[in-house]
Amino acid sequence: MGIEKISDDGDGKLEYLYPPHLLQNLDFNKSPAIFKPKISAVQPGEDWMVVRPLQKSDYDKGFLQLLGQLTNVGNVTRKQFDDRFNQMKQSGGYYVTVIEDKRISKIIGAATLTIEQKFIHNCSLRGRLEDVVVNDTYRGKQLGKLIVVTVSLLAQELGCYKMSLDCKDKLIKFYETLGYKLEAGNSNAMNMRTLL
Amino acid sequence: MGIEKISDDGDGKLEYLYPPHLLQNLDFNKSPAIFKPKISAVQPGEDWMVVRPLQKSDYDKGFLQLLGQLTNVGNVTRKQFDDRFNQMKQSGGYYVTVIEDKRISKIIGAATLTIEQKFIHNCSLRGRLEDVVVNDTYRGKQLGKLIVVTVSLLAQELGCYKMSLDCKDKLIKFYETLGYKLEAGNSNAMNMRTLL
Repeated sequence: MGIEKISDDGDGKLEYLYPPHLLQNLDFNKSPAIFKPKISAVQPGEDWMVVRPLQKSDYDKGFLQLLGQLTNVGNVTRKQFDDRFNQMKQSGGYYVTVIEDKRISKIIGAATLTIEQKFIHNCSLRGRLEDVVVNDTYRGKQLGKLIVVTVSLLAQELGCYKMSLDCKDKLIKFYETLGYKLEAGNSNAMNMRTLL
Repeated sequence: MGIEKISDDGDGKLEYLYPPHLLQNLDFNKSPAIFKPKISAVQPGEDWMVVRPLQKSDYDKGFLQLLGQLTNVGNVTRKQFDDRFNQMKQSGGYYVTVIEDKRISKIIGAATLTIEQKFIHNCSLRGRLEDVVVNDTYRGKQLGKLIVVTVSLLAQELGCYKMSLDCKDKLIKFYETLGYKLEAGNSNAMNMRTLL
């Protein structure tokens, strides 16, 4: 019908959280990040690797276990996962992006871009980088850099005037090499645990 | 029909961004903030003041001009404003909250709570405080504290496990009195301007 059919399996397991073509034309030359060797979202360096939007079937590919290397995830059932996936897709603004090792059908890297709608700056959009994690056993393949640059370029592609993240001290240098900056006198991330 | 009718004017100008009853039962005793005298979202201290969700008619009540005291807003047309309002409402997760001076029909304070859906922490929700501003000429009425505590309690009411904000150095003490904390080694807010 002229519209790309994203999901063509019976039960929607291959359904993407967002249109995968958005990752096809990101210009990695726009990023200050230096890749040695050169890789990108479409050419991640190994033919058994793919960078793509989250799919429902990633519940069976260790996506939540990978997030568990980052923080507490808990026992999320398939229904909870599907419900949250559907809610994110319905809301819009959620760009959970993963790297899969296709040889073993496992998710080995992930990062989330969320997009916040604003009234300021002429009803602009602001991007946020969240929940970045790469499987330790794939060190040396530039995957942390790859997944962060991918969603950062995606934010730009989608029209965000600014992309933000919170991080630990030890990660400041890494993010600086990717173009992120601490602004003097204006770089404090504060939190309140609302449910104790 | 048993369902509260939020908008009852002909052209939707009185339409709220989110259900106003959510502000009616916030327990201000749960906040570490100290108010002298005691005020709250339902009793903001003056009978000509009201704390409520953003309405479409706030375009005519100086809402954008107030935001202009915070940062650049630009020339947002009524259509742009209405479109953004509708998009926020459709997406869900946007709780733009205002204080109105009803004597002159002007917005004198505002803060935004956005809610991000997560997979981590058992598919939890994370709140963010954004775009806090109070009209300078209303100093001494605790309105900054009032609007921030209002949306912080709202985040808790809506089930957020954490509420976050970015701020300038000079505001750290203020937010600490409201329960926000810098975490040692993990409190860096970094940004990248994606469109230069």
